[in-house]
Amino acid sequence: MGKQKIFLDKLSRSLQIRNKLLRQGLAECLGTLILVMFGCGSVAQLKLSDEKHGIFLGVNLAFGFAATLGILVCGQVSGGHLNPAVTFALCLLGREKWRKFPVYFLFQTLGAFLGAGIIFGMYHDALVTYEHTHKELPVGIFATYPGEHLSIVNGFFDQLIGTAALIVCVLAIVDPFNNPIPQGLEAFTVGFTVLVIGLSMGFNSGYAVNPARDLGPRLFTAIAGWGYEVFVKGNCWFLVPIFAPFLGTIVGVIVYQLMVGWHVEGEVRDKKKTTEDNVKLNDVNDITAP
Amino acid sequence: MGKQKIFLDKLSRSLQIRNKLLRQGLAECLGTLILVMFGCGSVAQLKLSDEKHGIFLGVNLAFGFAATLGILVCGQVSGGHLNPAVTFALCLLGREKWRKFPVYFLFQTLGAFLGAGIIFGMYHDALVTYEHTHKELPVGIFATYPGEHLSIVNGFFDQLIGTAALIVCVLAIVDPFNNPIPQGLEAFTVGFTVLVIGLSMGFNSGYAVNPARDLGPRLFTAIAGWGYEVFVKGNCWFLVPIFAPFLGTIVGVIVYQLMVGWHVEGEVRDKKKTTEDNVKLNDVNDITAP
Amino acid sequence: MGKQKIFLDKLSRSLQIRNKLLRQGLAECLGTLILVMFGCGSVAQLKLSDEKHGIFLGVNLAFGFAATLGILVCGQVSGGHLNPAVTFALCLLGREKWRKFPVYFLFQTLGAFLGAGIIFGMYHDALVTYEHTHKELPVGIFATYPGEHLSIVNGFFDQLIGTAALIVCVLAIVDPFNNPIPQGLEAFTVGFTVLVIGLSMGFNSGYAVNPARDLGPRLFTAIAGWGYEVFVKGNCWFLVPIFAPFLGTIVGVIVYQLMVGWHVEGEVRDKKKTTEDNVKLNDVNDITAP
Amino acid sequence: MGKQKIFLDKLSRSLQIRNKLLRQGLAECLGTLILVMFGCGSVAQLKLSDEKHGIFLGVNLAFGFAATLGILVCGQVSGGHLNPAVTFALCLLGREKWRKFPVYFLFQTLGAFLGAGIIFGMYHDALVTYEHTHKELPVGIFATYPGEHLSIVNGFFDQLIGTAALIVCVLAIVDPFNNPIPQGLEAFTVGFTVLVIGLSMGFNSGYAVNPARDLGPRLFTAIAGWGYEVFVKGNCWFLVPIFAPFLGTIVGVIVYQLMVGWHVEGEVRDKKKTTEDNVKLNDVNDITAP
Repeated sequence: MGKQKIFLDKLSRSLQIRNKLLRQGLAECLGTLILVMFGCGSVAQLKLSDEKHGIFLGVNLAFGFAATLGILVCGQVSGGHLNPAVTFALCLLGREKWRKFPVYFLFQTLGAFLGAGIIFGMYHDALVTYEHTHKELPVGIFATYPGEHLSIVNGFFDQLIGTAALIVCVLAIVDPFNNPIPQGLEAFTVGFTVLVIGLSMGFNSGYAVNPARDLGPRLFTAIAGWGYEVFVKGNCWFLVPIFAPFLGTIVGVIVYQLMVGWHVEGEVRDKKKTTEDNVKLNDVNDITAP
Repeated sequence: MGKQKIFLDKLSRSLQIRNKLLRQGLAECLGTLILVMFGCGSVAQLKLSDEKHGIFLGVNLAFGFAATLGILVCGQVSGGHLNPAVTFALCLLGREKWRKFPVYFLFQTLGAFLGAGIIFGMYHDALVTYEHTHKELPVGIFATYPGEHLSIVNGFFDQLIGTAALIVCVLAIVDPFNNPIPQGLEAFTVGFTVLVIGLSMGFNSGYAVNPARDLGPRLFTAIAGWGYEVFVKGNCWFLVPIFAPFLGTIVGVIVYQLMVGWHVEGEVRDKKKTTEDNVKLNDVNDITAP
Repeated sequence: MGKQKIFLDKLSRSLQIRNKLLRQGLAECLGTLILVMFGCGSVAQLKLSDEKHGIFLGVNLAFGFAATLGILVCGQVSGGHLNPAVTFALCLLGREKWRKFPVYFLFQTLGAFLGAGIIFGMYHDALVTYEHTHKELPVGIFATYPGEHLSIVNGFFDQLIGTAALIVCVLAIVDPFNNPIPQGLEAFTVGFTVLVIGLSMGFNSGYAVNPARDLGPRLFTAIAGWGYEVFVKGNCWFLVPIFAPFLGTIVGVIVYQLMVGWHVEGEVRDKKKTTEDNVKLNDVNDITAP
Repeated sequence: MGKQKIFLDKLSRSLQIRNKLLRQGLAECLGTLILVMFGCGSVAQLKLSDEKHGIFLGVNLAFGFAATLGILVCGQVSGGHLNPAVTFALCLLGREKWRKFPVYFLFQTLGAFLGAGIIFGMYHDALVTYEHTHKELPVGIFATYPGEHLSIVNGFFDQLIGTAALIVCVLAIVDPFNNPIPQGLEAFTVGFTVLVIGLSMGFNSGYAVNPARDLGPRLFTAIAGWGYEVFVKGNCWFLVPIFAPFLGTIVGVIVYQLMVGWHVEGEVRDKKKTTEDNVKLNDVNDITAP
């Protein structure tokens, strides 16, 4: 085994990327790939089996735990955002540098694109069979489309609220001044959040709440045979899951910070100050003591 | 980023609320908002999609994990009750001050009201479509109503038992003398409790077991177009999920304390006393020793 | 609040039971009550709603997490067995005293009896309605009955294997020499075990795998109107979930100990011995050193 | 109880196996037995009850948590692979010795064989009834078979991708340089991974992604009455879940190591080196200091 170890060590050294941002981008890419591969895979399983091997609840569970697994895979390297809206929220609060935002967005979209590609390949025969029997390509497996009842205004509000809800929960989970859960369980809790969003906000348009998760697979479908139709459909719906989530992020950040975040932060600051004052006082006492 | 940090710090300081009870109220409001937004959202998704994008199990899961998320968001600030019955139980046992009770009740009801409002807005088009196709507004999405088989006496017992079961489990989870779970997992365990209550006690009237969760959304529906009908329906059913839970709380507190709580407490007290006696004895020995 | 605290302290002292075994029995009673109340409640919800408010998966989830909650409530006091088969397994391995066995069995059966009674009361109107529309009392809500395809021999084997599987998993979870999970998660893991048993071994006769869980509710139904029929049905099926589980326990204990348990124990013993030998050797060295 | 303890101690000593690899093999055998018993048991429950006591989601949950329980039972002794592909991945990365591979493969297959046997016995009457009413033996309960839409090439790709996805997640979970989860939760996280794979990649051929889990039960069915048909069916499909997973393992290892693993490893190495350099520098300072 000596030779194997030496070889692996060599390989590890020669393939190590030293640029931290690139490394983080790659990790986000793999994380988002996992999210979309498992998530869209479960939609594919549901639709292509004509609901025989799936159920909408299964899609919710898959997206939830896929988010957990994606975060676990890349979290230590990149923070495990998997979603430009999350990156945006952390930039807004000054916890991540703004220059990370475009890089993460790019790699997250790339990961989502690749994840959709893998599912397309995996279910190639099933897609062909589906097209043959239903005389049309299945929609909604990869990108999201609005339900028939949905106006564009309501759709925009839907994506805005969904993302705001996600951001409020994510901020609570990762708030450095608010410690609700044991370290290491963040990924699971985010997974439960995504699950719950799917259970309650999935009917209007399929709860994208993530610009990369929607745009990446949509680009893939445009190339893979669905054509430019994917952009036109639903009054250019594709713009909604790109822009509404960022507005929702702003709403979510404000709501969480106004109702919980800033007060917890203030309490910690007050305590620190009191301690510092006491220390100063003690110092004075120490000096005056003798 | 320097400017951003300074701006955020200023904002944080100027918006910090110094009154602790108000801060706790706001946190409870956000927590209950999350509970009701996700919980009622899942009922809306089930009903408005004519059970195509939902299943009753999904509603149970949503309410359970929504409770978890709501507790996580506000727990550090306010304790994460989300339910006047829980506040009442802790007041009964002397673990919270009685003056918290009306404040929490008010803010929890407000949060539930707002949560219902968000779901109403989010599913506005779907509600309109539903009304158009079914020729009536959907009931049961926001507030609870009794099943056709249910008498008012059985309904009262149903809410009483449901709340008692909730309180027994919650008391075991947060009992300072009984430590069944690792710190930080309380919110998840309460979530499982709510899930199980939904799975087994949801058929009679939809398991409100929480006066705020029921009253807040009911008030919203009264305003939003359902009218005073929401109070009259089912022989003034709306009174049951307000009063029965408090009686259930008393039953739950007595059952838990009688069968487990007081004995665990006594054991800890006995141990402490023995230790103290030993210490005293040692002290005596120490004195008499020389 | 001073008066309330004094009153509560007085109450706590006067109601404290000093007999440890009785305290443990009471705790087991409450734990098993919770298991059966939530478990049988979910079956009632499924059957009485004609599968509209339930699904078999929901029953599996309810029994699983009900076991978790039951264990959490009583675990610190009594160990949280909830099942005479588990008590029996721990007695067989010398980890509990044999005199606990009859006391636990009694109180577990009593708890199951009371749990069934609560569900009966809670769904009283629904049971009456069901009897009215279906012209018969629903069976299978409280106690288990064999499927039509099941012979008594296969049924006995079914209960034997189910209990053996449960015991193998429980022994791994609580083995003092095998530490697979962080402390405090035992209850959750046992819950997952019960869930999985329900998912895979529930078709033959409804996976009692617990003499108390089956006998207690059966006694209740005999009294509550189903009559002596509950004992006769299925060739006196009621004897199978009482006796087969104990045989299954023996099989489970032997399988786990033979394939994992005794080797882990031996390894720990060997390590200890090596350490002791080294210590002795060091002692000798210490002595001979000067 | 004295006698019982002495007897148990004697038994434990006389039955202790001192050969470590054999002990590990036995543990893997029991772990895989549990995986297949619960997993295939849930498929049996689904098929034999004509989907009345089951749902495809239940099968996914059962396989997921069965993996968790299997790992918990044997993890401390053998590492809890339950899958030759996992053993292969760890050998490839030099974390396990290659001579373990054939032994683990053998015992895993044996465990899967026995697990299938137990389910066959448990559902014997139900299988006979099914054969009687459907005029054929049910397929797909024990081993996997390709869907009608699936070509052999797509099937190979399906198993390759499924296993690669599993391996990427497992490697992240057990990577010594990447610590995403608290110790002791690995088994649960692997369970979620298996659950998600089932939710999204189960439609083509039933997601074996494990040579032992497929081969063992297939051998059992060949013996138990299905005959040599089980090998011929689907253009000798049985070869696919044996060979494709190993190729998928290689892909999974490369993808994870390229995108995350080697960079995390490198970072740790770099830090270590810096610390060592500092220590050296300090040593030099220490020497030159006086």
